[in-house]
Amino acid sequence: MKNAVCLLSGGMDSAVACAVAENEGYRIYALTFDYGQKHAREVAAAIKLARDFGVEEHKTVDLDLGGIFASALTGKGEIPEERTLEDIKEQIEIPRTYVPARNTVFLSLALAYAETRDCEAIYIGAHAVDYSGYPDCRPEYFKRYQEMADLATKKAIEGKRIEIKTPLINDDKAEIVRKGVALGVDFSHTWSCYSGTKKACGKCDACKLRLGGFKEAGYKDPVEYER
Amino acid sequence: MKNAVCLLSGGMDSAVACAVAENEGYRIYALTFDYGQKHAREVAAAIKLARDFGVEEHKTVDLDLGGIFASALTGKGEIPEERTLEDIKEQIEIPRTYVPARNTVFLSLALAYAETRDCEAIYIGAHAVDYSGYPDCRPEYFKRYQEMADLATKKAIEGKRIEIKTPLINDDKAEIVRKGVALGVDFSHTWSCYSGTKKACGKCDACKLRLGGFKEAGYKDPVEYER
Repeated sequence: MKNAVCLLSGGMDSAVACAVAENEGYRIYALTFDYGQKHAREVAAAIKLARDFGVEEHKTVDLDLGGIFASALTGKGEIPEERTLEDIKEQIEIPRTYVPARNTVFLSLALAYAETRDCEAIYIGAHAVDYSGYPDCRPEYFKRYQEMADLATKKAIEGKRIEIKTPLINDDKAEIVRKGVALGVDFSHTWSCYSGTKKACGKCDACKLRLGGFKEAGYKDPVEYER
Repeated sequence: MKNAVCLLSGGMDSAVACAVAENEGYRIYALTFDYGQKHAREVAAAIKLARDFGVEEHKTVDLDLGGIFASALTGKGEIPEERTLEDIKEQIEIPRTYVPARNTVFLSLALAYAETRDCEAIYIGAHAVDYSGYPDCRPEYFKRYQEMADLATKKAIEGKRIEIKTPLINDDKAEIVRKGVALGVDFSHTWSCYSGTKKACGKCDACKLRLGGFKEAGYKDPVEYER
């Protein structure tokens, strides 16, 4: 059986990416990062999802690295003010929720983990459609990362490539919902909201993109919202 | 004044790379990783060196990441048996001291740190001569890392490149000693030995390469050895 590391944040995108990996026949090593987000809800969601998928192993790694990361999501800034779904989708600037070198750090730790567990793939739920503002969500970034990874490890030198898989890279949120439904993802176990309220706020960028995706796909989001 | 992150392990190579950065006019943000090495001597050396250099900031980051790393140096294997200096230099296999994706993980965290501190360079003391067996010490690896980094960050998108600097990449140990002496590095504050003995063992690969370098350069190593 072939093995893959799946980056599992607890959000809906990584859950669907993990479902794709499972569907493609991989034994899954799930990897979740706790990097000082404003709430622990997402990490709790990742634990539920790992159980749903029956993963081989689930590592939750504390990345509270003494001020190396900083962004609105890690308590160093405020969560951005409310915007319309259209504004979010049309933005061309880099979002305030950008975390410096986040996907590079995540993929690099996943690469180390993949090598120790004899994995031949790393799945990441990044997509370039809704998050076009993030430099490290673009297809060309992942292409360059792959080229670097192909020289970086002992496995690679021995001819065993570790492939970076981005199965959602060209999907919008509605398509991700459709894929997840088709693969049987339990979306009630995912969490997207930036706030740590009991119910999802329904107001932040993440909630609006998620709700917009479910609406467009024609499904009801099973997560409860404050409004 | 321009800023640089310097990866400072506590060993002699990174100390000399840091001295090169200082000599090239950078304000230094030193970054040390504690990743479960068999002893804390190297980290203690990094703290002394950071003081020597009068760095702007020194972060020591705990990378005990729950079994993501594994190698002879991190307690998951035995330190390799004693070999001659010739055997060490001639080896073409990947050393048993290889840590999966180590430089990729280190550079990626340095990249995040560099972006938060507005740095335009990252210095790493890797060299391809004595460590030809490590995949992530080769010049072509660093070239690919740079190409990836040029797409990875907000800074890069804004046209402010973070340059990966490998000032020792073509040097052997003797040349590194000469450079360090010329730049006033206090080698008594560096630590290379794999063991955690009070004095350096003088027997492990790291000690043999170091002693060989000092001998060839015509200087006395100020560190005390058991033999």
